Amino acid sequence: MTIARRSGPDLTEAIMRTTLELGRELGYAKLSIEAIAARCGVGKHTVYRRWSSKGALLLDSLLSLSESALDYPDTGDVVADLRRQIYEAVDLLAGAPRGPLFRALIGEAQRDPGVAAALNERFIVPQADKTVARLEAARDQGQLSPHFDLDLAMAILSGPLYFRLLITQEPLTHEYIDRVLDALFAGMGPRV
Amino acid sequence: MTIARRSGPDLTEAIMRTTLELGRELGYAKLSIEAIAARCGVGKHTVYRRWSSKGALLLDSLLSLSESALDYPDTGDVVADLRRQIYEAVDLLAGAPRGPLFRALIGEAQRDPGVAAALNERFIVPQADKTVARLEAARDQGQLSPHFDLDLAMAILSGPLYFRLLITQEPLTHEYIDRVLDALFAGMGPRV
Repeated sequence: MTIARRSGPDLTEAIMRTTLELGRELGYAKLSIEAIAARCGVGKHTVYRRWSSKGALLLDSLLSLSESALDYPDTGDVVADLRRQIYEAVDLLAGAPRGPLFRALIGEAQRDPGVAAALNERFIVPQADKTVARLEAARDQGQLSPHFDLDLAMAILSGPLYFRLLITQEPLTHEYIDRVLDALFAGMGPRV
Repeated sequence: MTIARRSGPDLTEAIMRTTLELGRELGYAKLSIEAIAARCGVGKHTVYRRWSSKGALLLDSLLSLSESALDYPDTGDVVADLRRQIYEAVDLLAGAPRGPLFRALIGEAQRDPGVAAALNERFIVPQADKTVARLEAARDQGQLSPHFDLDLAMAILSGPLYFRLLITQEPLTHEYIDRVLDALFAGMGPRV
């Protein structure tokens, strides 16, 4: 079977794998749907039928080919469970080899509202729902402040990580994640 | 005096004002040093002698022409003082008319390491220094947890704001800033 004869899910997956492969080789700026289609042995319209833009295709490739659904464990220790899920998400999306592509995608979301919307629908909203569900269970077990504003959960927990990824651009180490979780759970105010 | 005869600080300021004006008219993607130079009545090399790229020029324009140094007041109430400074910073950089240009600049920092470095040197590091100084004073007055990790101050305080600016792209209202400050000072953990 030649590449050109693949169709349906096989072809979709081949296009996404090629997107990540070429993205790593060329970087986001030089990545093009034409080049992806050529390496897959299909016409560019075959790609455009499935994805409206390079950004949408890259987002799908980054998320769909991950080995993990980024679910939270529930061991009964909320800080340990958040830590484990955040390690996994950060290693997957912010580390090598996908990190530079994920950063470029968020850069693209500043220029292309379609990419921003897809990023939220495909990634942020589902992750926020899982985070809130895990924190609700923790609250019921007395492991979370009953006053914590759950609508802020994603912004508070992941904001410091995006700040480092996008602004200071320092490495997102596990040690940094530990320090952020400690600081957020302890709070900035004095305990009286 | 014609525009072309201005030089030194006058010309520098005229170029920066024109950058913001044209940036608002055209958006970041269509903004060019050629167009800025043309509107100022100078050659593009006059602009390139002062700034190495469109991103560096825009960053300088956004920061230098602000009416405020974004200093923290010290009224003795650290939460009130943080709130006032954050309102000011957010209104200046994330609101209309500069917000879209500031977002575009951070997008550019994902592709251009020179823009990322300038953003940190010109804006993030000085703001972090001021924030840490204000929080140290608060700690000395018992208004901050003695255990709070001051190296995380910028990431913890501004991360949730950048998350909203860059990721969910919802408006950065004063009400949102209030909720974030309340949540960060109270902490996520239960008070025991």
